[in-house]
Amino acid sequence: MSKKYVYLFSEGNQNMQELLGGKGANLAEMTRLGLPVPSGFTVTTEACNKYYEDNKLIDETIKEEIFAKIVELEKITKKILGDINNPLLVSVRSGARASMPGMMDTILNLGLNDEVAEGFSKKINNKRFVYDSYRRFIQMFADVVKGYPKSNFEQKLEEIKKAKKAKFDTDLTADDMVLVTKEFKKIYKELAHEEFPQDPKVQLIEAITAVFRSWNNERAIYYRKMNDIPSSWGTAVNVQEMVYGNSGNNSGTGVAFTRNPATGENKLYGEYLINAQGEDVVAGIRTPEPISKLKQIMPEIYEQFENIAKMLEKHYKDMQDMEFTIENAKLFMLQTRNGKRTSKAALKIAVDLVNEGLITKEEALLKVEPKQLDSLLHPTFNIDALKNGQVIATGLAASPGAGAGKIYFNAQDVTAHAKTGEKTILVRLETSPEDIEGMNHAEGILTIRGGMTSHAAVVARGMGRCCISGCGELIIDEEAKTITTKDGKVYHEGDEISLDGSTGKVYDGIIKTEESSISGDFETFMSWADSIRRMKVRTNADTPKDAIKARQFGAEGIGLCRTEHMFFEEKRIFNFRKMITAKTTEQRKNALNEILPYQRNDFEQLFKAMAPYSVTIRLLDPPLHEFLPHTDEEIKLLAKSLDLSFEDLKKRVESLKEFNPMMGHRGCRLAITYPEIARMQTRAIIEAAININKENIIVNPEIMIPLISDEKELKYIRDIIVEEANKIIEENNSNLTYKVGTMIEIPRAALIADKLAKYAEFFSFGTNDLTQMTYGFSRDDATKFLSDYYNKQIFESDPFTKLDVEGVGKLVHIAAKNGRNTRPDIHLGVCGEHGGDPASIEFCEKVGLDYVSCSPYRVPIARLAAARATIKFKNKE
Amino acid sequence: MSKKYVYLFSEGNQNMQELLGGKGANLAEMTRLGLPVPSGFTVTTEACNKYYEDNKLIDETIKEEIFAKIVELEKITKKILGDINNPLLVSVRSGARASMPGMMDTILNLGLNDEVAEGFSKKINNKRFVYDSYRRFIQMFADVVKGYPKSNFEQKLEEIKKAKKAKFDTDLTADDMVLVTKEFKKIYKELAHEEFPQDPKVQLIEAITAVFRSWNNERAIYYRKMNDIPSSWGTAVNVQEMVYGNSGNNSGTGVAFTRNPATGENKLYGEYLINAQGEDVVAGIRTPEPISKLKQIMPEIYEQFENIAKMLEKHYKDMQDMEFTIENAKLFMLQTRNGKRTSKAALKIAVDLVNEGLITKEEALLKVEPKQLDSLLHPTFNIDALKNGQVIATGLAASPGAGAGKIYFNAQDVTAHAKTGEKTILVRLETSPEDIEGMNHAEGILTIRGGMTSHAAVVARGMGRCCISGCGELIIDEEAKTITTKDGKVYHEGDEISLDGSTGKVYDGIIKTEESSISGDFETFMSWADSIRRMKVRTNADTPKDAIKARQFGAEGIGLCRTEHMFFEEKRIFNFRKMITAKTTEQRKNALNEILPYQRNDFEQLFKAMAPYSVTIRLLDPPLHEFLPHTDEEIKLLAKSLDLSFEDLKKRVESLKEFNPMMGHRGCRLAITYPEIARMQTRAIIEAAININKENIIVNPEIMIPLISDEKELKYIRDIIVEEANKIIEENNSNLTYKVGTMIEIPRAALIADKLAKYAEFFSFGTNDLTQMTYGFSRDDATKFLSDYYNKQIFESDPFTKLDVEGVGKLVHIAAKNGRNTRPDIHLGVCGEHGGDPASIEFCEKVGLDYVSCSPYRVPIARLAAARATIKFKNKE
Repeated sequence: MSKKYVYLFSEGNQNMQELLGGKGANLAEMTRLGLPVPSGFTVTTEACNKYYEDNKLIDETIKEEIFAKIVELEKITKKILGDINNPLLVSVRSGARASMPGMMDTILNLGLNDEVAEGFSKKINNKRFVYDSYRRFIQMFADVVKGYPKSNFEQKLEEIKKAKKAKFDTDLTADDMVLVTKEFKKIYKELAHEEFPQDPKVQLIEAITAVFRSWNNERAIYYRKMNDIPSSWGTAVNVQEMVYGNSGNNSGTGVAFTRNPATGENKLYGEYLINAQGEDVVAGIRTPEPISKLKQIMPEIYEQFENIAKMLEKHYKDMQDMEFTIENAKLFMLQTRNGKRTSKAALKIAVDLVNEGLITKEEALLKVEPKQLDSLLHPTFNIDALKNGQVIATGLAASPGAGAGKIYFNAQDVTAHAKTGEKTILVRLETSPEDIEGMNHAEGILTIRGGMTSHAAVVARGMGRCCISGCGELIIDEEAKTITTKDGKVYHEGDEISLDGSTGKVYDGIIKTEESSISGDFETFMSWADSIRRMKVRTNADTPKDAIKARQFGAEGIGLCRTEHMFFEEKRIFNFRKMITAKTTEQRKNALNEILPYQRNDFEQLFKAMAPYSVTIRLLDPPLHEFLPHTDEEIKLLAKSLDLSFEDLKKRVESLKEFNPMMGHRGCRLAITYPEIARMQTRAIIEAAININKENIIVNPEIMIPLISDEKELKYIRDIIVEEANKIIEENNSNLTYKVGTMIEIPRAALIADKLAKYAEFFSFGTNDLTQMTYGFSRDDATKFLSDYYNKQIFESDPFTKLDVEGVGKLVHIAAKNGRNTRPDIHLGVCGEHGGDPASIEFCEKVGLDYVSCSPYRVPIARLAAARATIKFKNKE
Repeated sequence: MSKKYVYLFSEGNQNMQELLGGKGANLAEMTRLGLPVPSGFTVTTEACNKYYEDNKLIDETIKEEIFAKIVELEKITKKILGDINNPLLVSVRSGARASMPGMMDTILNLGLNDEVAEGFSKKINNKRFVYDSYRRFIQMFADVVKGYPKSNFEQKLEEIKKAKKAKFDTDLTADDMVLVTKEFKKIYKELAHEEFPQDPKVQLIEAITAVFRSWNNERAIYYRKMNDIPSSWGTAVNVQEMVYGNSGNNSGTGVAFTRNPATGENKLYGEYLINAQGEDVVAGIRTPEPISKLKQIMPEIYEQFENIAKMLEKHYKDMQDMEFTIENAKLFMLQTRNGKRTSKAALKIAVDLVNEGLITKEEALLKVEPKQLDSLLHPTFNIDALKNGQVIATGLAASPGAGAGKIYFNAQDVTAHAKTGEKTILVRLETSPEDIEGMNHAEGILTIRGGMTSHAAVVARGMGRCCISGCGELIIDEEAKTITTKDGKVYHEGDEISLDGSTGKVYDGIIKTEESSISGDFETFMSWADSIRRMKVRTNADTPKDAIKARQFGAEGIGLCRTEHMFFEEKRIFNFRKMITAKTTEQRKNALNEILPYQRNDFEQLFKAMAPYSVTIRLLDPPLHEFLPHTDEEIKLLAKSLDLSFEDLKKRVESLKEFNPMMGHRGCRLAITYPEIARMQTRAIIEAAININKENIIVNPEIMIPLISDEKELKYIRDIIVEEANKIIEENNSNLTYKVGTMIEIPRAALIADKLAKYAEFFSFGTNDLTQMTYGFSRDDATKFLSDYYNKQIFESDPFTKLDVEGVGKLVHIAAKNGRNTRPDIHLGVCGEHGGDPASIEFCEKVGLDYVSCSPYRVPIARLAAARATIKFKNKE
């Protein structure tokens, strides 16, 4: 049997979303439930995929199938496509598996042509209505099918309105509409070099083709990338008999939700317009009425609708978003779907539905997208204030939240002004570790370069500070302290802007922000997640402040403490630089000894904040040149304070320069060259742990070695750590226990994990670096060319955000499996940015990792995502 | 049963090399054959390994075993260790599995102490001889066991000689020697704060310990790294009864080869000294006589020795290198081993042994190390001239051969001077693609930075030009045009130096070079290799000249033609830069059209040179910034010639800068952004092939896409190539066939090879980049820190030279296996530097690759290595 590509609504049901798309499946389901749905059929997503396989042509057999369904539809509706007296008019609408509102195209009133318009006008005795529909059809067809600019048609309409002295479209008469139609056809012919198609079948196939084509328009591709929707899904097309809400005061159209999508309140919520089509609501000429008013005007219709709404919610076990049309006092349902809602509403609805006995806790957890929690944890812009906001540029939504203030171009200026109470925004070409303090004081961070995992993005997310990175649209002049927009507007130091880190939009001036608050529903909901999830959730935290924040969000330990950030405070960096520029091991040891007490104190605070959970501390990772200045002027200053000659220091700085610092002398390679650094850090960790232990606080230190690629390399460093640690433990007569483990962030480490497991009690997958090395591109440089990859649909998601299961995931899988073969109780976790990404967390569950670790503000997201992953895999079993 | 750690010579045989070391096994074998060998025993390599496992202590049970063997030795020799009248004196010598001449330590005359010396002197009535031996023993013991400087002892000896008015040691009397001994013991006590040990057993254990320890001295580690000897092998120690060639005119000592090790001539070759010990030969005080003279002086001994030599050669089926001593007209064999020989001799001996019926062709192929062929293909220094050469610095032996000339500091100067007939050496901090012409004109290339796979090294090897890279000892001032040695000597532009690219040594002044010639033996030998090997050998060649050279060396196709080098000629780079700075696709296409005819012509020449073999052409690979200048001055000049503003060009240069260019916008990523480049190159390749085809020459073009990491990425570019190629073939009514394939040089590509194979007719493993990405270090930066890895024995070989089987090899294996699963006839090869490395070629054979590709001068090496690999794996089956 050959494949079926077209289904009548009566042939489908709600479970056929993959094939019929969301809209089609729900129209079918409503039809099945006996609800009043205008008849129609759905061309499947498979037809769409075949269209692309066949080089953007609709197969002849599929066309035949469509025409056969038209015949069936004619029978059901008792109308005939193209009939002069009793024409079947249809809408053609896209409908993908996942809702992609406004992303694809729609054509209404299809089936009209010159003859039909004339005959139909006479038949229903409403010439104005028919020609209004016809001219709209021509305009939509020209726009959607042919891609001609709307402005041509809009100008002509304005001209005629002016000539006829009409203020609104509604002021035009029937004859005026005939004229508009005629003019529109003329414009169409000029643009197309052919007449407007009169054959409704031609119209239909062209319209369906246009919808298929719209699956790959730019905004649809962008939307899919944003929402992790694969391009392979394709879209279905729904062809449905037209109903008219604009056929008199007995008619109307509206949209409603079964519950309030902003607050979650359990009350029908929506609006409608009498004598109008969906378009008119959008056009905003008339203000819609709240749905409650319909009760007074059409009480029977309202009651019918209310009952349908309740029935649909019960049936779908979720809040519904419905479209309806009333044609001559008859209600038609045009759409139902699970309604989009704010995060706050999502939580309330999920909790309420459980309390109402409609769904289980597991089902409730599956109803809230983890990413939605984000907006609950960060400040947001006041919605009304945002409406008037003027976007001046768009970058990457690197760290969510909202921030507004005066711009400054370096960390010092930000800090100075912030201390006077000013609200500030740090604007940089890109940030570096030295900017940490300024980043902490700013309301938001804006960088011109860098991707989603650039320094600015990673650190800002850790701090919960809003950040827009990679905003290449803006031209920065760091010396002149200005940024210039595409339109040439220049912002100077002290000028005001606002950043929306959740959308990547930069606004002119100050937009009011609001603190979000965590409600009781949140606590209830998260407790369900915690009771169900298998994986633990740790946090990436470098400071006690971060650690405390993360515990408030439910973190169960620190999965990654980067020690390098600790070296940037003024007093420490001096000694650290002394260490780097030391000429003998002795000098280096002395400098390290100066740093030891600071580090020990850091770790004491951290252990206290996180007790009794484990704290994983990574040994020094970045290349040493990051700690030294690079301009001659700065080098001169530093040379003086270090008591070195300028030439000596300059030479040292030069000698540390690397072609590819990402693949240079960093990570454990530093410990191979300078074992004394690893010794000092081990001492600081172990002494801190012993000190805290003495206060009867439980401490579980885990020492993590970064960038390992070889078995002997790991053994060499592990031996040093163990020797040093055991010596200190013995000296102190302590019974402290600790673990030593390694990051798996180099492909080779994953490949030889069986051997590494001999010397590692835990593996922590550093999926940021692992992604870089596995793909062979640097995250700092890739932003430049990856846009071409997205545009050409080679990549559909950012591998630094969503773990690449096929390549990087394979390495994680190999390492987890082989590591466990060698050491069955080896502890496995992820500490890359992916640890906070729901899709990646699902992968971690699949591979059976023990925990994920993410920045504090992502901990709740990870808790929910982990719970959902547990449920999903339980359901599959 | 507990392990046996000590073997009498009579308990071993030649097959026990792993356990007894080379020397020990051969002493045992000679003993077994009934040859006159002084008795002794061997402490095994396992004892050495145990010594290191036990934190550098010899286990008590092993000591017991050694003393037990001493007792057996005393029975055999009828002498007693420490006996005053009849003392057993022994030598203690190292003996690793592989010969490591001079790398480890030796102690002679062990067993002497004050009492033994006195008693023994009386017994044999030769006080001078005994005390001469004793003082030598003290000095050796102090040096080898204790590490005290020899100079202390040498000075004292000189003092005494002066006081005694003795010119040579031989002028000293017996009493003088007693005095020397006394003084030496005094010096020893001063240094050691204890008396010279009198107990022979203590002496023995300390001496054995010292030999074990010497396994890890710096020069031994260095030698092992050079020769791929794992540190895990350990060394054995041979303890052997002393015989004395210095006990009168009836005695003597000598060294001989069964054939001439320089020429391979089948004639006993060697030298001897009457009344001397081995040391005296080395000391060079007396000139040894040729071995032929022994025939006249001691005809019987000579005949006995000649018979032994013949027997040994027949027995070992190889040319032998033997040491012998004559004590009172009695011949003793002290060593035999397969003799080291020049490459020329190696070939002659191998071919002769086959012709003599002693060995098979397969055995002959296994007798010549592929790397030995290297020196046959490059100019070398005249041996006599080299003796007087003064080494001024040592760098990496990046490309073999010898070169001498005047130094110049940029490619332009080299080219200009070379054109006047001057011999020149190009000296650079590091080379870049712009230096190609200068590199080609120079006699040799010296770079201060960069490793074995740096640009300079790779290109020089390709050209067969000698090159020393990474010579960090020298300080370069490119502006002042000087290099300064460690000793402060400054060389200016035009000063003369000589480079030995086979050793990495830089010499002062001009040293005479000699062209090496390929002999008839070479042809015979290589024809045997070709008849046996399974894998094909291709070459990496970018120019017709390289291709012709490579064919002379036996290449069977081009495995890698890098097209980027073709863009650097003056006329072309102008258009290429125009292409890079183009603001519209149109401008870029125009610039590319200008380049097309040049490229087409390049490929025509290449196809002709390599017909009928396949030619694999890689699409443009390096980041675009490599083609643009970087200083403001150069940018200004270029801007003018490109008719751009300085600011515009500067901005473009800046915009191309990357943090990690190795992981940046290069390889196929360029083709994604600028498909028109791939189109132009495809057109050039296909049009060239069609043109050559018309001349009835067979052409097999293979288009190779670099840096692929994703299936869709490959499909996207492959589609472009195929579309363009097929269009041209159709237009020309040609029946040309071509292949499209990909490099596997990114870890992810290896991991998803099953998917890539859908779109690739061949895989070429780019093991240089694959090694970088798998280890996560850049070859340009790694040289800096890898020295620490070698020193700490974390790495034993350079993974860029010898393929890392465990990690990188696993990826190659996965990709080969999975690629073949998808496409059983997929063609697989290696085109990284490893394609010319014998150990790596062995791995390629194991994985079943179809070919290796290497630089022209390595083709013969690869042919031999491939044959040897075939034989080895056949033998294992």
